[in-house]
Amino acid sequence: MSEAMLKTGATIGILGGGQLGRMLSVAASRLGFACHIFEPGVNPPAGDVAAKVTTANYDDLAALTAFAKSVDVITYEFENIPTEALDHLESLCPIRPGREALRVSQDRITEKDFLVGLDLKTAPYAAVDTLEALADALATIGTPAILKTRRFGYDGKGQARIMAPVDAPLAFANMAGAPSVLEGFINFTHEVSVIGARSIDGQVSCYDPGENVHRNGILHTTTVPARLTSSQRMDAVLLTANILNALDYVGVMGVELFVTSEGLIVNEIAPRVHNSGHWTQNGCVIDQFEQHIRAVVGWPLGDGSRHADVEMHNLIGTDMDRVSTLAAEGNAALHLYGKADVKSGRKMGHVNRLVPKKPAKT
Amino acid sequence: MSEAMLKTGATIGILGGGQLGRMLSVAASRLGFACHIFEPGVNPPAGDVAAKVTTANYDDLAALTAFAKSVDVITYEFENIPTEALDHLESLCPIRPGREALRVSQDRITEKDFLVGLDLKTAPYAAVDTLEALADALATIGTPAILKTRRFGYDGKGQARIMAPVDAPLAFANMAGAPSVLEGFINFTHEVSVIGARSIDGQVSCYDPGENVHRNGILHTTTVPARLTSSQRMDAVLLTANILNALDYVGVMGVELFVTSEGLIVNEIAPRVHNSGHWTQNGCVIDQFEQHIRAVVGWPLGDGSRHADVEMHNLIGTDMDRVSTLAAEGNAALHLYGKADVKSGRKMGHVNRLVPKKPAKT
Repeated sequence: MSEAMLKTGATIGILGGGQLGRMLSVAASRLGFACHIFEPGVNPPAGDVAAKVTTANYDDLAALTAFAKSVDVITYEFENIPTEALDHLESLCPIRPGREALRVSQDRITEKDFLVGLDLKTAPYAAVDTLEALADALATIGTPAILKTRRFGYDGKGQARIMAPVDAPLAFANMAGAPSVLEGFINFTHEVSVIGARSIDGQVSCYDPGENVHRNGILHTTTVPARLTSSQRMDAVLLTANILNALDYVGVMGVELFVTSEGLIVNEIAPRVHNSGHWTQNGCVIDQFEQHIRAVVGWPLGDGSRHADVEMHNLIGTDMDRVSTLAAEGNAALHLYGKADVKSGRKMGHVNRLVPKKPAKT
Repeated sequence: MSEAMLKTGATIGILGGGQLGRMLSVAASRLGFACHIFEPGVNPPAGDVAAKVTTANYDDLAALTAFAKSVDVITYEFENIPTEALDHLESLCPIRPGREALRVSQDRITEKDFLVGLDLKTAPYAAVDTLEALADALATIGTPAILKTRRFGYDGKGQARIMAPVDAPLAFANMAGAPSVLEGFINFTHEVSVIGARSIDGQVSCYDPGENVHRNGILHTTTVPARLTSSQRMDAVLLTANILNALDYVGVMGVELFVTSEGLIVNEIAPRVHNSGHWTQNGCVIDQFEQHIRAVVGWPLGDGSRHADVEMHNLIGTDMDRVSTLAAEGNAALHLYGKADVKSGRKMGHVNRLVPKKPAKT
C-alpha cells in the first residue's frame, strides 16, 4: 500500500454540504471512510449521510481549525471558497485538489489565461472593470457577447447578455461593481463535457464525454454517448488530461467544451465533481464521486468504463411533482437530495435513464 | 402519489447499525430520505452515513419511545429483535416488514412449519429440548445431522454437527440449554438464494438467483447467474413470491435454497436485505437496499433487472490486507464497512467483480 494511501476508517473533510457533498460522502462510505462536512448553512443535504457536520462560516477560524484537526484530508464540493479560509486550512491539513486548481478556476480571466497558455482554444475575452473598458471590449469582441463576473458565478448567476452595444450600461450595472469579463459568443453546435480524474501519483482517467443541454442557464440533461467523431472524442480526452497534468491535479474535474466546426473550445473548468458527471452513478462500475474520493485519499483510480447508454435529467424546482411517476419508470434510477424546500431553479435531484449498451458492430 | 408513499425528507428508523444498516441508509439517501439508527453498540458502521444515531439497549423503553416518535417508519437490518421492544415500537410507529415475518423467522421450528404449510420442501426437522428428545430425533432423522438453536443463530453460530449418535451429548451441551432443532443433512449439489421484494400494494419483484459458497459457516461468494435450469429458476422465483405473499410481506427478503435432484429445498428465510444480494449494487439499476427502502416507504419497486454477470466476494477479517490490490483491479467495485477493528470471522467488506452481460444467443 502506498504511504499516501489513507486507510479505511480515516475521515475526509468536505467543504460544502450540498448535493455534491452528499454524494461524495456516500461514495466515501463505500470505501470505508467517514466524512465531516463544513457548511455555513443549517441542515445541509450532506448532513444526512455524514459522520459529523460543522455549521460555521468560512471566517470562523476556530471552527476551521477544529475541522481541519479532525480530518485526514480536506476536499470540497465547490470552487468558491474564500482564500483566507483555504490559507488557514492548508496550514493544518492537506487540501485536494490543490490550491493551484482553485486559484486558476476561481477567476474567469486567470482560467482563460491558463487555458490559452496550454494552447487550448477559448472564447475571445477581455477584462472589464469600467463602463469604458466594456465599450472597448465590445469594439474588439463584437456582439452578441456575454458579460460575467470574474468570480463566484454559477448556474447562470452573475451573467448578462449583450445583444447590441445599447445593452452595455444595463449589463454593466447588473455586475454591481464586481470585476468582470466580456466573452464573445461562440458559434457552436452543441456542448459536451469531460469528467476527468487524476490520482496522487499522476494516473489519469476520463469518463466517456457527455452531451449537455442547458435551460435557463442550468444544466437540463446530459446524454452519453455524446455526438462526437472519434477524433473529437480523442481530442476532448487528451486536452482534459493536459489540463489535469498542468495543474498537478488530484481529484475529479469537469471540463465543459463547445463543439464547433473549428474544433473544441473550452468553456470552463470546474475543480470538483460535476453535475454533467452524475450519469456515471448508473453507467459505470466506479462513478465520479468514488473516483474523486479515491484520488483525494491516495488510492488508485477505479474502472470508469461505461456499460450503458445514459440520459441524466436534472429535477429542478417543481419537477419534484413528477417523482411518483418517475419512481415507477423502468430502467430509471432516481437520485434525490433530501432538500425540504422546493424553490424555483433549485436542483432537487436527478434521474438517470439507462439503455443497455449495444455490442459494437463487427 | 399513493397516500402511503412517504415523501422525500421523511425519516426512516433502522434497528441495527451494522453494514446492512449502513448500506440501507445510503440507499435511503438516494431517494431523499434521512435515517435514524437504533443500535446498542457504540460507533456503529451505519452511524457514519445516518442523520441520527441512538445508542441504547432494546430494553430501554424511553430510548425506544423517542426513537419511534422521531421517525416515519421503522425497518431493521436483522431479525433477532426482542419481542418486547417490537411490541413497544409497533404501538408508536409502523414497522415494515411486519411482525408476522419476524415471528416466523425468529424461530427455526416456526419457520419450517410455515414453509411446510405452503407445501414447500425443507430438511427433515424435529424440536429438541432434552438429550432424550435428541436421541429420538436422531433415530428418525438419522446422521449426519445438525443441531441448531431455535433462535438467535447467524453465520454458523449456535450450530453443531452430529456425524454419529456418539456426538449427540457434546452437540447438545453446545446448545447451552437453549431450545433447539435437529435438522437432517440434505444431499444438495449447490446452494442458491433469491432476493425477493414485495411492495406495500402487493407488487412482487425478484432478482436473478445467485449461487452461494460458504466457508466456515460464513458466506464466501455469490455468483450470478447461478447454475439453474430455466425451470429451476422459475420455481425459485415463484416459491419466493409464494412466501412473500403468504406473509403479506413489505420489503426485501432473502430465501436460501438447496438445489437437489428432487428439486429445490428451502434452507432458511431472512426478513431483510441479505449478504447474498450484495451483487445487486453493481449488477442492477436498483439494488436490494434501495428496493427495500422503496418498499418500506410505500414506493413502487424499482427495476431490478440484471445488466452484468457478477461475482460477489466477501472480505472477512484479514482479507482486508488485500484492499490495496483489490482497489487497483479493473471491473471491480469495493464496498468497505468502515469497521475499525479487524477480527477473525468478521465481515469487513465485499468486492463485486463484473463481467458485462453477453447478449442472448439468437
